[in-house]
Amino acid sequence: MTQASRIDESASGVYIISATPFTDDGALDLESTDSLVDFYLDKGVAGMTILGMMGEAPKLTEEESLAFTRRVLQRVDGRVPVIVGVSHASNQHVERLAKASMGLGAAGVMLAPVPNLKTDDQVHGYYAAIARMLGKDVPICLQDFPQSTGVHTSVAVVHQLVDEFPQIVMFKHEDLPGLRKLSQLRTQSEAAGRRRISILVGNGGLFLPQEMLRGADGAMTGFAYPEMLVQVCDLFAQGRPEAAEDVFDLYLPLLRHEFQYGIGLALRKETLRRRGAIRSATVRKPGPVLDATDKAELVRLIGRLEARLVARASS
Amino acid sequence: MTQASRIDESASGVYIISATPFTDDGALDLESTDSLVDFYLDKGVAGMTILGMMGEAPKLTEEESLAFTRRVLQRVDGRVPVIVGVSHASNQHVERLAKASMGLGAAGVMLAPVPNLKTDDQVHGYYAAIARMLGKDVPICLQDFPQSTGVHTSVAVVHQLVDEFPQIVMFKHEDLPGLRKLSQLRTQSEAAGRRRISILVGNGGLFLPQEMLRGADGAMTGFAYPEMLVQVCDLFAQGRPEAAEDVFDLYLPLLRHEFQYGIGLALRKETLRRRGAIRSATVRKPGPVLDATDKAELVRLIGRLEARLVARASS
Amino acid sequence: MTQASRIDESASGVYIISATPFTDDGALDLESTDSLVDFYLDKGVAGMTILGMMGEAPKLTEEESLAFTRRVLQRVDGRVPVIVGVSHASNQHVERLAKASMGLGAAGVMLAPVPNLKTDDQVHGYYAAIARMLGKDVPICLQDFPQSTGVHTSVAVVHQLVDEFPQIVMFKHEDLPGLRKLSQLRTQSEAAGRRRISILVGNGGLFLPQEMLRGADGAMTGFAYPEMLVQVCDLFAQGRPEAAEDVFDLYLPLLRHEFQYGIGLALRKETLRRRGAIRSATVRKPGPVLDATDKAELVRLIGRLEARLVARASS
Amino acid sequence: MTQASRIDESASGVYIISATPFTDDGALDLESTDSLVDFYLDKGVAGMTILGMMGEAPKLTEEESLAFTRRVLQRVDGRVPVIVGVSHASNQHVERLAKASMGLGAAGVMLAPVPNLKTDDQVHGYYAAIARMLGKDVPICLQDFPQSTGVHTSVAVVHQLVDEFPQIVMFKHEDLPGLRKLSQLRTQSEAAGRRRISILVGNGGLFLPQEMLRGADGAMTGFAYPEMLVQVCDLFAQGRPEAAEDVFDLYLPLLRHEFQYGIGLALRKETLRRRGAIRSATVRKPGPVLDATDKAELVRLIGRLEARLVARASS
Repeated sequence: MTQASRIDESASGVYIISATPFTDDGALDLESTDSLVDFYLDKGVAGMTILGMMGEAPKLTEEESLAFTRRVLQRVDGRVPVIVGVSHASNQHVERLAKASMGLGAAGVMLAPVPNLKTDDQVHGYYAAIARMLGKDVPICLQDFPQSTGVHTSVAVVHQLVDEFPQIVMFKHEDLPGLRKLSQLRTQSEAAGRRRISILVGNGGLFLPQEMLRGADGAMTGFAYPEMLVQVCDLFAQGRPEAAEDVFDLYLPLLRHEFQYGIGLALRKETLRRRGAIRSATVRKPGPVLDATDKAELVRLIGRLEARLVARASS
Repeated sequence: MTQASRIDESASGVYIISATPFTDDGALDLESTDSLVDFYLDKGVAGMTILGMMGEAPKLTEEESLAFTRRVLQRVDGRVPVIVGVSHASNQHVERLAKASMGLGAAGVMLAPVPNLKTDDQVHGYYAAIARMLGKDVPICLQDFPQSTGVHTSVAVVHQLVDEFPQIVMFKHEDLPGLRKLSQLRTQSEAAGRRRISILVGNGGLFLPQEMLRGADGAMTGFAYPEMLVQVCDLFAQGRPEAAEDVFDLYLPLLRHEFQYGIGLALRKETLRRRGAIRSATVRKPGPVLDATDKAELVRLIGRLEARLVARASS
Repeated sequence: MTQASRIDESASGVYIISATPFTDDGALDLESTDSLVDFYLDKGVAGMTILGMMGEAPKLTEEESLAFTRRVLQRVDGRVPVIVGVSHASNQHVERLAKASMGLGAAGVMLAPVPNLKTDDQVHGYYAAIARMLGKDVPICLQDFPQSTGVHTSVAVVHQLVDEFPQIVMFKHEDLPGLRKLSQLRTQSEAAGRRRISILVGNGGLFLPQEMLRGADGAMTGFAYPEMLVQVCDLFAQGRPEAAEDVFDLYLPLLRHEFQYGIGLALRKETLRRRGAIRSATVRKPGPVLDATDKAELVRLIGRLEARLVARASS
Repeated sequence: MTQASRIDESASGVYIISATPFTDDGALDLESTDSLVDFYLDKGVAGMTILGMMGEAPKLTEEESLAFTRRVLQRVDGRVPVIVGVSHASNQHVERLAKASMGLGAAGVMLAPVPNLKTDDQVHGYYAAIARMLGKDVPICLQDFPQSTGVHTSVAVVHQLVDEFPQIVMFKHEDLPGLRKLSQLRTQSEAAGRRRISILVGNGGLFLPQEMLRGADGAMTGFAYPEMLVQVCDLFAQGRPEAAEDVFDLYLPLLRHEFQYGIGLALRKETLRRRGAIRSATVRKPGPVLDATDKAELVRLIGRLEARLVARASS
C-alpha cells in the first residue's frame, strides 16, 4: 500500500465526503466500500474525507470505524489523501482514533467541536487542547458546522488557532449563512500577513460558486455527482467562473434537493446506489427511509438532470 | 375602498409575503408601500400576506403595524385578498391586532405559535385557544415555521384543528425538510374524508415544484421575482409540471441565494429596490446590512439571471 | 415627585425585580402597582427593576409599559432608584423606551441582547451599538440570561464593554451555572486594574450566598419574600456570611420552588397576592396557570416556612 | 454471582445513579468501582442505575462499558437490581448493549431518545421501535430528560407506550418544570384504569418531596449523600411527609449546589472522593474541573451540612 502525503495548506479541489456503505441489514459493507472508492476516484476527486457526520460515524463501533478506514486506505492506495473524521465526546477517543488513523495511512484528521461550547474562549480552548494533545505531526481540518453541533467558531478564534498551531492546515466551512464569514477569514488573514490555510466548503455545495469567488479553495461535501464539483473547481482554477457556474446551475435542482437535512443522506445514498457506487442505500436506524413518493421524486429529478446534460452535450 | 372577500379553503396561487419598506433612516415608508403593492399586483399575485417575519413585524410599534396595514389595504383596494400576520407573545395583542386588521378589510390572519410549546397537546392547545378567542368570522392561516419558532406542529395536530375549527382554512407550510409532512397532510386528510384546506408553501420557494407535485396549492413566500412564482403556479394549474419546473430552474440560483436565513431579507429588499419596487433597502437594526462584496455578488447573480432570460426569450 | 439619583458602579443590596400586576381579566392594575411598590419598599429593597422578563414586558403595549413606569416612579417618589427594562427586537424601540423612561425619572435601563448573537464579536457589537446610541447619560445594566435569550456573553466581552463605555455600570449575573464566571469577572477585572462595576445576581437567588462570597454586590431577582434577600445582603455587608446563609437556608425550600422556570412566575404572583401585595395573581395568556394541586403545594410550602420562622423567633 | 430479579412496576425507593470512577489519568478504575458499589449499598439504596449521562457513558468505549457493567454486577451480587443505560445513536448498538447487559445480569435497561425527535408521533415511534426490537424480556425504564436530549415526551406518549408494551415498567421523570406532568401521568393513568408503572425522579432530587406527594415512587438520581434520599423515601413510605421534608431540607443547600448542570458532576465526584467512595474525582475530558475556589466552596457547604447534622443529632 502506498501512502499519500499529509494534507497541508495548499489542499484544493474536491475532497469528497464519503458515505459509509451498509448492507440491507445494516452491516458494514466492505465490498461496496471498494466500489465507492473506485467511483469517487473515477470522478476525479482530489481527496476523500471519511467518517464525517454524513458517514454516520456516531453509529459505528470503534472496530467498524477502523475497519472502514483501513479498507478505504487500502483501496485508495495513496492515490489521493484521505482525511478521517475523529470527532468524539471524549478527548481520549479523539486521540486514539487520530493516532490509529494516521497509523493506517490517513493524510490528516477532521475535528468538530463537542456541543455546549458557547464563548470564543471555550471554542478556542477545546480546539487548542486537542491540537496540543495530537501534536504537530497530525494535520487537522477544523470542521465548522454549527447547524449540527450548535457551536459557533468565530473568525477571531480561527485566526488565533492558525497562529498557534501549524498543524491546523484546513478549515471546512459550513456555517449558514456563511459567505461573509468566508470573506472575513480571507481578507483579515491576508491583511494581517497570517498563514493562509486551505478552506473547503460544505453545505452540500449549495453556494459553491459564490464561495469560490470569495476565496474558497474547493469543496468538501458529499453530493452524489462528484464530477460536477470537480468540473466547477477545475473551471475556477482555470479562471473561468462563468463557465463554472453554468455547470453548477445545471445540477443545482438536484443538489438543492439533496441539501435537505436528514432525508438528504438517504437521497444521497439512493443516488449513489442508482449510479452503481454502492449496493444498498441503507442508512442505519434510526434514520431516514425513502418511501415510494420520495423515490419517484428523486428519479424524476435525476431524469430532468440527465435530459439537460444530454441536451447540453448535443448543443 | 373595495374589500376583497375573506380567504377560504380554495385559496391558491401566489400569496406574496410582503416586505415592510423603510426610509433610509428607518421610518415607515408609506410611499414605497404604495409602489410595492403596485409592483406585487403588477406581477400577478393572487394575494398578499403582510407583517410576517419577513415583514419585520416584531420591529414595528402597534401604531406602525396598523398604519402599514391600512395603507396596504387602501392601495390594494379589494383587488386581491390580504392576510395580516398577528403573531404575538400575548393573546390580548393577537386579538386586538386581528380584530383591527379585519376591521380595516383584511381577508384573514396568519398566526405562528409562541415559543416553548413542546408537545402535540401544547401546540394544539395554543392554536385552539386563539381560534376560540377570535371566533368563526376570522379566517386563520396556521404558520408552520419551526426553524424560527422552535415549535413543531405535527400532522396530527393540524388534522385535529381542522376538524374543530372551520375558520382554520389555510396552512403555511414551511417545515424543512417538510416534503413528507406535506404529503402526509394531503393523503391522510383525503383518506379520512377530512375538510381539505389550502396549503401554501414558504422557505423562499426552494422546493416549490416538488411541493406542488405533492399537493400544495401555491406559494406564500417573498421571493423578489414574484412573476416566476406566478408563472410556476399557473403552469402547474395548467397541468404542465415540466414546463413549470423549467421556469423555476432558471431562477433557482438567485432564489437559493435569497434563501439564506438572516442576510436573505437584506438581499430581498435590495433586489426589490433595484427593481424599483421600494426606494430604500433599509432593514431595521439590528439586522443584516449588505457590504460591497454582498452587493457585487447579488448584482452578478441578477445579471446571470437576466442574461438567461434574454437567451431563453430569443431561443 | 422626587427623583432618585442615577445608578452607578456602587449599587449594592437588593434591586427587586418587580412583577407587573394585572386584574383578573388581564388589564394593567395600577392600584396594585401602588400596593406592590409599597410592599417592596416596606421590605427594605435598595432599588427596583421593572419590565424585566418576570415583568411580562413582551406582553405589554408600549403605552402600558410607559403607564406602568410612570406609576411606579410616582409611587416610589425618589426613595430608591428604579431601573427599567428596555430590551426589544428593534434598536429604535430600545432608544425610544430608554429615553422615555429616563425622562420619567428612571435611574438607568436594563438591556438583554437580541437572540441569534453567536460569537463574542457579535455580542459585543450589539451592546456597543446600543450604548453608543443611548449615550453617556443613560446608565446601563447588562442583563445576562442565556437560559432565556440563548446568547452567551463572555467575560472578555464584559471587560471590553466596561473599558469602552463608562455608562455600563452594572451587570445582572444570571448565567447558570455561573459561579466561576462571576469569580472570573471579579478577579480578572481586579488584576487588570479595570473599573469595578456593580454585579447583582438573578436565578431567583438560588445561589445568592455563594455569589456574595465570590464578589457579588447584591441580588436582582423577584423572590416573593424580599425581606430575606435584604437580610442576607445586610448580613453579608456586616461581614457575617454564616449568619446570612443561615437565614437564606430557611427560605431555600420555597425559593427553590419558585425557581421553576415558567410556572415560577405564577407561583410568585400567587405568593405576592397571598401576602397582600397585589390583588390578582393573573399572568397574561398564554402563560402558566396554577391548578388546585399547585396551590395546595404552594400553601404547604409557605406554611412550612412560616412555622420555621416562628420556631426560630421563639428559640 | 447471584442475580437480582428484573425490575417491574413495583420498583420504589432510591435507584442511585452511579458515577463511573476513573483514575487520575482517566482510565476506568475498577477498584473504585467496587468501593463505590459498597458505598451505595451501605447507604441503603434499593437499586442502582449505571451508565447514565452522569455515568459519562458517551465517553466510554463499548469494552469499557461492558467491563464496568460486569464489575458492578459482580460486586452487587444480586443484592439489589441494577439498571444499565443503553442509549445510543444507533439502534444496533442499543440492542447489542441491552442484550449484553441483560446477559451479565442486569435487571433492566434505561433508554433516552435520540435527539431531533419533535412530534408526539416521532417520540412514540422511536421508543416503540426499540421496545419491539428488544422484546418482552428486557424491562425498560424510559428516561425523560429534555434539558439534555432536547426531546419532549408527552404524557399522551407515555400512556400509549405503557398500553402497548408491558416491558415498559418504569419512567425516570426529569422534565423541569415537571411537577404537573407527574401529576397528570398519575391521575390520567388512574382515571383510565391503565397499568401503573414505577416513576422515579431525577433532577438531582431538587423537588423530591413535592414529587413524592404527587405520586412518585422514589428517586433515581446521583446525589452524593444517598442516605438522605433513602431516609426521605422511607419516611414517605411510612406516611410521614413532614418528617421526610425536614430531613430533605437539611441537605437542600448542598443538593442545590450539586444540581448545577455541568460542574455538578465534578462536585458530585469530589464529594464521593471526600467520603471515601472513590479514589479520584477525575471527569473525562472535555469536562468540568474544580478550581481552588470551587473546592473551598464545596468544603464549606459540606461543613455547614455536617454541623447541622451534629446539631440535630444532639437536639
